[in-house]
Amino acid sequence: MLRRAEENPLIRTENIAASGEGLRVVGTFNAGAASLGDETILLLRVAEEAVPGAGAAACPVFDEKRGRIVAARFDEKQVSREGDPRSFRVGGKQFLTSMSHFHVARSRDGIHFTPDPEPFMLPANRYEEFGIEDARITKLEGRYYITYTAASRLGCVVALAVTDDFVSARRLGVLFPPDNKDTVYFDRKIGGKYYVLHRPSASVFARPEMWLAESPDGRCFGNHRFVAGVRPGMWDSDRIGAGAPPFLTERGWVEIYHGVSGSGRYCMGAMLLDAEKPWRVLARSEKPLLEPEYPYEKTGFFGNVVFGCGAVRRGDVVRLYYGAADSSVAEASMTVEDIYANLNL
Amino acid sequence: MLRRAEENPLIRTENIAASGEGLRVVGTFNAGAASLGDETILLLRVAEEAVPGAGAAACPVFDEKRGRIVAARFDEKQVSREGDPRSFRVGGKQFLTSMSHFHVARSRDGIHFTPDPEPFMLPANRYEEFGIEDARITKLEGRYYITYTAASRLGCVVALAVTDDFVSARRLGVLFPPDNKDTVYFDRKIGGKYYVLHRPSASVFARPEMWLAESPDGRCFGNHRFVAGVRPGMWDSDRIGAGAPPFLTERGWVEIYHGVSGSGRYCMGAMLLDAEKPWRVLARSEKPLLEPEYPYEKTGFFGNVVFGCGAVRRGDVVRLYYGAADSSVAEASMTVEDIYANLNL
Repeated sequence: MLRRAEENPLIRTENIAASGEGLRVVGTFNAGAASLGDETILLLRVAEEAVPGAGAAACPVFDEKRGRIVAARFDEKQVSREGDPRSFRVGGKQFLTSMSHFHVARSRDGIHFTPDPEPFMLPANRYEEFGIEDARITKLEGRYYITYTAASRLGCVVALAVTDDFVSARRLGVLFPPDNKDTVYFDRKIGGKYYVLHRPSASVFARPEMWLAESPDGRCFGNHRFVAGVRPGMWDSDRIGAGAPPFLTERGWVEIYHGVSGSGRYCMGAMLLDAEKPWRVLARSEKPLLEPEYPYEKTGFFGNVVFGCGAVRRGDVVRLYYGAADSSVAEASMTVEDIYANLNL
Repeated sequence: MLRRAEENPLIRTENIAASGEGLRVVGTFNAGAASLGDETILLLRVAEEAVPGAGAAACPVFDEKRGRIVAARFDEKQVSREGDPRSFRVGGKQFLTSMSHFHVARSRDGIHFTPDPEPFMLPANRYEEFGIEDARITKLEGRYYITYTAASRLGCVVALAVTDDFVSARRLGVLFPPDNKDTVYFDRKIGGKYYVLHRPSASVFARPEMWLAESPDGRCFGNHRFVAGVRPGMWDSDRIGAGAPPFLTERGWVEIYHGVSGSGRYCMGAMLLDAEKPWRVLARSEKPLLEPEYPYEKTGFFGNVVFGCGAVRRGDVVRLYYGAADSSVAEASMTVEDIYANLNL
């Protein structure tokens, strides 16, 4: 049976300092997770807004010259607002009211985390102009592969970075073109090939659903295959995407994924993929593993959301770290058997 | 100066037989082009509709068992129509009123074409359920690489097939996940890597624009880079995408691309890309190379469209084959110098 940590939420908005003057943190959530030596690493998505002045519209923007996020202020009279309240336009140019970057937190027990003093990754190029979001981490051949959503006026792409130590990261370019998100590496080759799950967003016909791709070198992907779609009338009827990177069990690959219902409620469930043919779905949660139930999951920057991007497995126990209501990071632990039970295996 | 063939349009709807009973051809257009020995090959997109019976709604569907396109008929009372008139729903399931496949036509002089007796490629798998469209052909290391749009309820993907003879083709899977179109291979490696231009469609922020990707093996692509976007107020303000595969000149790679204006008018222009760094745009048409002017370009299944998918270069002369008004195939020839002049070089 799944158990939430009593200490939940583990990391809250007030635990992370803003990355610069005139900014305030509005969410620390959707963290990637990894084991590094005897530490558990969380790679937090930190969302910031700009503090508005009197009569001014404000938003965080990436200052390429200074390599920092800064608060931009505009005369409210120059601002046009329509549609999505999370964006506005000035002189035809679009701005978003919040911007995310990545911050590392470390723990010895997997529950009590200490944030690093400085941010780990800030936006750094034109593909990241609107921020970087929702990191996933896979340890593959001794290095940590970090995939994340990079947002800009060119669309939402999946970008890749690698690190050995979570002190510095090296960017390796855009893995998938717009629009794509929720990309997780498998932690070993299968039949001589690297694999990822990813989540393209089609503009017509299809819903945002889960696909698989293969690679000869871990950097260039092809032979894309549809893996799993939305299920009308169920908890994952509107959109789905990979959550934590998959891990191999004696039954196959366990993928803990997110699903969204028609009413916009985000839950986490599981999928079992064939060990040798990971495009084959062997089982899938009829009911969620985890759904928004507690106040910190039901209310926040965006309520009724549990959104896991990372899990750490030690022996038979899996700790799932998840963003709660786009505000904080929480933890729930379960055994592999608990997941099998949810999958009716 | 660009010259249209006097014989235009070269191939019309009535030149191609329907692929099966109860079907009628409504367009033969957007053809890929290649040289094979002393022949010019066109790979036509043939769009078909189903002939409706009394009181029945009809559409072509792919019959997987028979490997053919067949006419499906539904009681008009069961049909729900809303939004796009090119689709309807029966019992919640979506159907399109037309479906495309590929047909080869051959010519000795590049102007007079003889269609093969049978279709070259019909839809063949779940990614092609709504048809296959807009082939591009590149001869690369002795084989013909065919990229095309495969449409289905999973979205619009770019699929890859190879052929040696345009008699039979071998499918090599999905190259780019949904939504993506307009993918062209460069005809040789650059710095040891294969390259394609492609056209992802983002659902937020961005317009459909041109990107570049690289590959170690010609099958799996990564390191995606934005190449060129729409230009507000110009002939290519709404969307752009690769047209013919690029060809190398002493000035760089010439890419003949399509652009669409805010009013939905499709024109063809040119782009010059750096020979060694093909993500660098050195020049771009201020005015189109080709725009809808003639009756067969202004009126048809979808009027005001010229849409080139293939060009054959022999010496200094480039023959551009283009779909006219989503109805027929036409030709326009120009010299490389004509293209340079259009690019103000």
